[in-house]
Parts: sequence; C-alpha cells; structure tokens
Amino acid sequence: MPRYSIGIDFGTESGRVLLLDLDSGEQSAPVVVPYRSGVIDRALPDTGEQLPADWALQDPGDWTRVIVEGVPHALRNASVDPAAVLGLGVDFTSCTVLPVGDDGRPLCEHDAWRARRHAWPKLWKHHAAQPVADRLNSVALERGEPFLERYGGRISSEWYFPKLIEIWLEDRALYDAIDGFYEATDWIVSWLTGVQLRQACTAGYKAFWSPDEGFPSDAYFEAAFPGFSNPTEKLGTEFVALGTAAGPLRPELARRLGLPESVVVAVGNVDSFVSVAGAGVSEPGTFVMVIGTSICDMAVHEQEVRLPGITGVLRDGILPGVYGYEAGQAAVGDMLGWFVSTLAGDVGHAELEAAASEIGPGETGLLAFDWWNGNRTILADADLSGVLLGLTIQSSAAEIYRALLESIAFGNRRIMDNFEEHGMALERIVACGGIAEKSPLTMQLIADISRREVSVPVAAEIPARGAALFGAVAAGAFPDIHTAIRATHQPGARTYRPDSEAVQVYDRIYTIYRDLYDVLGRSNAEWLHGLKQIRAGAKER
Amino acid sequence: MPRYSIGIDFGTESGRVLLLDLDSGEQSAPVVVPYRSGVIDRALPDTGEQLPADWALQDPGDWTRVIVEGVPHALRNASVDPAAVLGLGVDFTSCTVLPVGDDGRPLCEHDAWRARRHAWPKLWKHHAAQPVADRLNSVALERGEPFLERYGGRISSEWYFPKLIEIWLEDRALYDAIDGFYEATDWIVSWLTGVQLRQACTAGYKAFWSPDEGFPSDAYFEAAFPGFSNPTEKLGTEFVALGTAAGPLRPELARRLGLPESVVVAVGNVDSFVSVAGAGVSEPGTFVMVIGTSICDMAVHEQEVRLPGITGVLRDGILPGVYGYEAGQAAVGDMLGWFVSTLAGDVGHAELEAAASEIGPGETGLLAFDWWNGNRTILADADLSGVLLGLTIQSSAAEIYRALLESIAFGNRRIMDNFEEHGMALERIVACGGIAEKSPLTMQLIADISRREVSVPVAAEIPARGAALFGAVAAGAFPDIHTAIRATHQPGARTYRPDSEAVQVYDRIYTIYRDLYDVLGRSNAEWLHGLKQIRAGAKER
Repeated sequence: MPRYSIGIDFGTESGRVLLLDLDSGEQSAPVVVPYRSGVIDRALPDTGEQLPADWALQDPGDWTRVIVEGVPHALRNASVDPAAVLGLGVDFTSCTVLPVGDDGRPLCEHDAWRARRHAWPKLWKHHAAQPVADRLNSVALERGEPFLERYGGRISSEWYFPKLIEIWLEDRALYDAIDGFYEATDWIVSWLTGVQLRQACTAGYKAFWSPDEGFPSDAYFEAAFPGFSNPTEKLGTEFVALGTAAGPLRPELARRLGLPESVVVAVGNVDSFVSVAGAGVSEPGTFVMVIGTSICDMAVHEQEVRLPGITGVLRDGILPGVYGYEAGQAAVGDMLGWFVSTLAGDVGHAELEAAASEIGPGETGLLAFDWWNGNRTILADADLSGVLLGLTIQSSAAEIYRALLESIAFGNRRIMDNFEEHGMALERIVACGGIAEKSPLTMQLIADISRREVSVPVAAEIPARGAALFGAVAAGAFPDIHTAIRATHQPGARTYRPDSEAVQVYDRIYTIYRDLYDVLGRSNAEWLHGLKQIRAGAKER
Repeated sequence: MPRYSIGIDFGTESGRVLLLDLDSGEQSAPVVVPYRSGVIDRALPDTGEQLPADWALQDPGDWTRVIVEGVPHALRNASVDPAAVLGLGVDFTSCTVLPVGDDGRPLCEHDAWRARRHAWPKLWKHHAAQPVADRLNSVALERGEPFLERYGGRISSEWYFPKLIEIWLEDRALYDAIDGFYEATDWIVSWLTGVQLRQACTAGYKAFWSPDEGFPSDAYFEAAFPGFSNPTEKLGTEFVALGTAAGPLRPELARRLGLPESVVVAVGNVDSFVSVAGAGVSEPGTFVMVIGTSICDMAVHEQEVRLPGITGVLRDGILPGVYGYEAGQAAVGDMLGWFVSTLAGDVGHAELEAAASEIGPGETGLLAFDWWNGNRTILADADLSGVLLGLTIQSSAAEIYRALLESIAFGNRRIMDNFEEHGMALERIVACGGIAEKSPLTMQLIADISRREVSVPVAAEIPARGAALFGAVAAGAFPDIHTAIRATHQPGARTYRPDSEAVQVYDRIYTIYRDLYDVLGRSNAEWLHGLKQIRAGAKER
C-alpha cells in the first residue's frame, strides 16, 4: 500500500500543493494556485481606500482557495488514491499575521471590521511598523534587555510585536475586538482542523519568546509603549513543537477535498525554516542557504552559542532536539534585479551570467559589498549601503555583474566564518531557492569563496516538500522528523566543488574584503551612516 | 589700422586656426582642419605594419596641412586684410615628440627611415614606454633624486625621456641618426620660421629641466639605463622663454599663405598651459581648470611652493615672471563616457544631466571617487581605482551619474585644499574645455563643493586664443603677455556662484570624503593596489 503526505507552501503571490511518496521519496509536480488579490499594497478591497506607503496585506480567502482548489487538483494530476494520504503539512511566509475574532474567523471577514485596514492580514513585507520597531529597539538597548542578544542585537519591523502594537496605536477599537493575533501558518492549520494551536518556531524567531527564558518582561513593553501592559493577551503563552499533530481534517473539509477524515495535519511551519527538512538536512555541520530575493541561512547545533549579529537562535526552532540558528543576507535577487533594470540596458540575467562565467577569478579587479538593503548578518545594520571598488574605464557590465555575484559569496563566507569563530563547525553547504537552481555561477562562487562543497538538491519545491515531511511525522508515518528526512532522501544533488586555483585567488581578495568590512561596517560605520542621514535630511527639504 | 594675430591649436584629431582682433579682443570662428591619418595606433602608413599595444603616432604632414589650408581659409572667412596680421602663435598637445634629421625634416619623411615605427612622431598618449618610465621612477626613488619632487614624486610614461629612451633601447641605428628629438610644438615653429629653438615650458614640465636646477645628473640616467650616458644630446640645453619671437615666417611660406613676410612667430606653446592666457587669467589667486577627457589644473604664484602630489612646478613655465603649477584629475570625460557606454543603455549625457539636475545635493546618498584612471593629484597613484559607495536598490542611473559629476568636484576640492594648506591662496576658478562649456551642472557642483565662484569665459577655442596672444607679444603688439591678456579681456563670462544650502550639505559629505580619501588612497592604499595586482596576475594566467 503506497503512503503519501501532502505539502502546501503558502508564498507571497501564490500557493503550491504537492504530494510526497513516503517510500520512494519522490514528489509530484506542484499545483500552483495564484492569489487573486496577490499582495494588497495599493487599495483596500471593497472600499478602495488607498493604503499608506509600506503597507502590504493579503486576503485569507486566497489562502483557503489554494487548499480547496489545489488539493483535489494535485490528487487527480498525480493519480494518487486519496486513501493513501496519511498526513498534511503547511508552510507559510513569516511573519505574516492576522487578527482573528472569537469565532475563529479573520476580522477582515467580519462585516463590522472589513472596511478597517488593520483588520487584514499583514504580509511579512509590511514595513509600516518601522517606527514601532525603532522604539522597541531603542528601549531594549537602553534597558539592556537580554532577549535582544538572541536576535543579534536588533529586532525587525517585520516581526510580530511591531505589527501588533501598530494596531494598538492606530485602531484601539479593533485591537480590543481581537481574540487572537495569529501567525498565518497557525491560522490556516486551525482552519484545516478546527483546532487553535500555536507552534514554537514563530513564537521564538518572531515574537521574542524562548523556551528557556520566556518573554521579555511586561515592564519592558510598558516602558516602550505605556499602557501596552499585557503583551501576550493576543498571543498566548503556550507553544507546541514542530511536527506535533494539530488534529485530523475537519470532516466537512475532508469530504470537500475528497480526502479520508483520518488525514492528520501537522502544526504550521515557516517556509524558510522548513527548507532545512525539505532539503534533506537533519544533522549539525551543514549550512542551509535559501537563496532568492534575499538569503535565509540556517544551521542546527547541539549547543546554544551566542553569535553576534545572528538573526535568531531558538531551541527546537528548526528541528526538535537541537538549537536552530538563523542568519541571512538582505539583498540578493533584488540587488541583481536592480542591476539589470537600472544599469544593464536590455541585457538579462542569463546573458549577464553567461558573460560573467567567461571571466576568471580576480580578473575583474572589482570588489563589492552586497549591502544594497543594509547588512543583516553579522552587522545587523540597515543603515549600511552597497559599495563597489576597483572601477576603471575598462570595467564592463559583465564584470560588475560578476562582482555582485562574488559579493554574495563573500558576504556568505563572512557569516560562515562568524559561526566557525564562535565554535560551530560547518563542513558543507546545501543551497536551494530560485538562484540556487538558476545560477550555477553563483553556486560555484559560493563553493570557491567559502572553500566548501555546495549541493543543490535534486528536488524542487523544497518548502512544500519539508511541510509534507512534517505532515508525515504528525501522521505517525515516521517516529520523528530526522528519520523522515533520512528515509526520503533522494540522491542526485548537483554538487559544486571548490576549485583550488580559484580558492587561492579568492582567499587573497577576501583578506582585503575582511579589512574593508571591519572599516566600513564597524570602526567607521559612520561614513555610510552619514550618507544615509544626509540623504534622509535632503529628501525632507 | 586693425591689428590681428593668428592662433593655431594642434589637437589630437585636428588643427584649429583663428584670428584674434588685438584691439577688440574678439576672435573669428575657427577653421578646423582634420588630420587625414588621425591617431596612428593600428598600422604604420605605407608599410601597413601592425603597431604593438599602447602605440599612438601622428603624421607631420597632417600638421603642416593645417597651416597651409587653414590659414588662408581663416583669412578669407574673416575677411581680414592679411596686411593687418602682425603675429602668429601655435600650441600643441604635449608631450608629443618626434625625431628630426640634420636637414630639419622629420625622420619619418626620409625614405631611409619611413618604414621604421620609431621614426614617427609619438603622440602624447603613446603609452608603450611605461616600462622605461617605471625604471626611471624606481631608480630616481632609490637614489633620492631631488628633481622628482618637482613632479609630485612620480614621472609619467608620456614624457620626453621615456619616449626617447624607448628608441635608444629598441632601434639604436635610428637613435644614432637623430639630430634632434623635438617637442612637436618646437618643430612646427621651426617649420614656420626655419629657426630651430626650444622653449622652456616643455623642457621643464616634460623633460626634467629646471631653470634653477638644470637636469638630473648623467649618473642618474647611467644608473637607470647603463650606456645612455649623454641624455641631452638629442634635446640640447638652451631653452627660451614663452612669448619670445622665434622669427618671421619663411618668405616662401609667407607667400604661400598670402601673409606679409613681416609676420612674427612666437616660440611654441602647449595646449593646456596656454589656456591660462587664453582664458584671460594673468594673476595669482585664480585656479584655471581645463576640463575635458581629463582635467588639467593650473595656477601661477610669486613663490615656489613644494606641493606634495603636484604634476609639476616651473618658474616661467606658464607665464613669465611667476612660478607655474600644474595639477590634474586623471578621469573626467572618459569616466562619464564609460558610464554612458557601459551602464546607461541608450541614454546620453544630455538626458542624464537633465535628470541629474533634478536631484538635490545629498539626495543620492551616494559618494564616488573619480579614480577610474588612478589619481593624478595629489596621490600621484595610477594603481588606485574608482569607488562608489552608498548604493541601494533605489539608486537610479541618474543618481549614479550625478555622483560621478560630484566626484569630479570633490576631487577638485581636495586638490585646491592641498594648494591652500601649503600656502597658496586660491580665490576663484576659471574653467574651460568641453565639459565646462557643455555641463552647467558640473560647473555648479564645482562651485558648490569648492565654495568658490566658477567663471566660464565667453570665448571658445581657449588654447588657440592663448596662442594668438603669445604671437601678438612676439610681434611686439604688447610689451608682455600680462598686458596682452588684460588688453584683450572680454566680459560676459558665465558665472556659477556657490549656493549656501548646497555648500552646507556638501561640506558634510566632504568630511566623509576626506576621511575615506586618506584611508583608501593613503593609509590603506594596499586594498585598491591589491585588487589591481590580483587582476594583473589573473589576466596573465
């Protein structure tokens, strides 16, 4: 009897559904269901009210449509007997959060609240809460809040409390009507099962919680926002481990989807973290990079190490039983896209990559810092900016493009050095995401510059695959996620090995890179900060 | 009775002839005579022999054609009575040099030598003698040669001795056949007059001579190139002052040109230095910038000041009776041209300047160092390279273009600060050259960033105008060049005044610029040097 698990990945513009064969490890081609409303960043549905700058919302109806349309479609496409489906797992963008009423429905689906913009789910890239984040950061620094260290010294406006406090500040009536303020990944699981649970991963990485240290004190929140005195009233304080079964499908939903009522749904996952499992990684010593618009790096380790500049560290945050570490680079695909649209005329990525591949290591004479969106790890400094050195009147567009690809790899080496220098050995890299699949040159540069082998798994749809694995564990198909990962591992990864001549050249350049990194990013960070401050002042006039 | 002087400017691609009215100060539109052979950098005329990399030659026949065709044409166009012409002056690119036989003719016009590439005039931008210059520099440094200080610590491969020693090394038979190795500006005057004289300006700025200190010792040359023991045998040791009369036109040439035999020809000038007179400047305190492919800066001063990083200083070198200082920036028009051809798609300078003009001071958040061809003054370091800081995914092509224009103005301020910090007050700027005429934004930025008024003279063809003024002095129309400049001064210069708000913003940015200048250009110059070295090594493999 074959055994399957369903994985559903909720992205920024669409959802993707696949079926994972739990014995062969093979997965079906995904069914992609685009969101009708996409990213709501201009006008509110129905009322047409214009949204302020930096707003980004979504419609929960788009998410449920992914399930209702996508699951039956995926079963038909793959000719899978629904009776063979044991489990279901989801992953979501994060921190994407929504206010929910006491009936479990999103407030934006209540007639009374639908016309209020704060009633809608705030997408991860909703950045309008930056002033709230600035205040939370400065008060935490003033008070020497120890929780800040788990987040590398700086919290993001994208996270849970900035988005929640934004409502508390701007629409108190709506805030009072909220029964729970949920991560979308938790809410969609409650919609699937009728069971309201929250998992520990987002509580830890996005909502300041730690299994060992709990939450920051109420006094901290009160100091930052006097009157915001009950910070966890919309969040709760109970969080379950990843891989836990939330419950079976709601019977009426199971019928609608054509699935047995016995299908077990796992608690929600997050698209980046679930990629560790999806990429087939379960052991310490492997650095997992999800390379797309930006880079999310993850690694697991038996001990907790306090790393300067890390995005977050959390016990059980990625895989149960180990500490999960998150790091990252803030501008990757969007920096390359910027170059193509701003400076490359009509030449596209493929043509630039082909031309850049003809250039040898060190031949450009160029060196770049990929700080176009600031530096996430290890400087955690959004006020840094991109730098390009070594320009001559012989510099070509392809050489500059190559220098930008190299800047991604140098940034990565600096992050990996930081892990190693603090006692976490990292022996190899597993890379996934759009750029890992589409840019062999970037992968070779990461290998040459990090001096480590880079594998790109043969499977696509890594997040959905990881979600399906957690669904399988929840359904009892495997005793734990580690076993599930090993049992479904697929050979055939594309492997990029460091070239010894390239390593020598890049080691010399990296010596220069590291010196400049310290000067521009640390000892004299006031130079790049100054340019941003002057720019902000000039724009105001 | 009207009085006229003829000015002839020998450029890189063409010659230009104009008539200057010595009473009104007005000048005729120029007659432009393109060189038929242009820059000879691919194949030798007649033989078709391929030239090595970095070679750049010219054909003396192209120069004489400028005179024979251009002078009668200019007289006709301006309806000037030839009898009213008193003087004639020329200026030339420099260091453009040629070997001449004992009959006064260029060796390339002798059948015996015409097929040998070293027989041809070497244009200023002939760079094949770089290894000779490297050797001359290193031996001068080793020996602590004091002459090096007059050239800011480094001599150029474009200068007289590198080009002469290149012949001595590579074609000894031809070297031995040379009667004199002449600056083109001196040779063309000998062709006009039949009198062989050399002026002091190029002897000083290009051939290591000083009126006070003479030449470097023979022992220095012998140490650098054993056997090259008589350095001045092809150059001579007698040099006459600028504005000296070389003599009247050769009678047969005067008839051919339709000019009276009484027309007096001045000794030769150089296009950059003669621009000081051409721009109407005769007093200390004014900084003259000739802004084209690169920038040549000039100033005169009563005393000799030893300035670090200056290109050259010479008594009587620009105007008689004062010390002439030369400085410069190595990449201006060609850096902007590089941007347009490499990174701006189909958008041209005019459109970019219009867009860049809409941006306010400081609004780009960008800062650039114009070291695309290294830094000429004050670091005298060809191994530096261009740097661009402050990039974000919002940076536009127009913003980057503006940052490049600003980099020209910041580089200029750094040079002017260097003069002032060493005791030479500079109160105002007079700018000429293509970019001064075509880019009002660059002129405004130079005003705002230097905090000085910038004037762009109403007259075009500044070098030819200056040459005509020296011709007038040689002919006795004025007692000296200072009087000639004042008597022909024309009002109506376009003036750019510093904007006080812009000054404040740019002062803040300049603080950052200056710190970075010292770190990237001095204390940690090994970073940019390292990138060039790694590049050179990579290209060799």
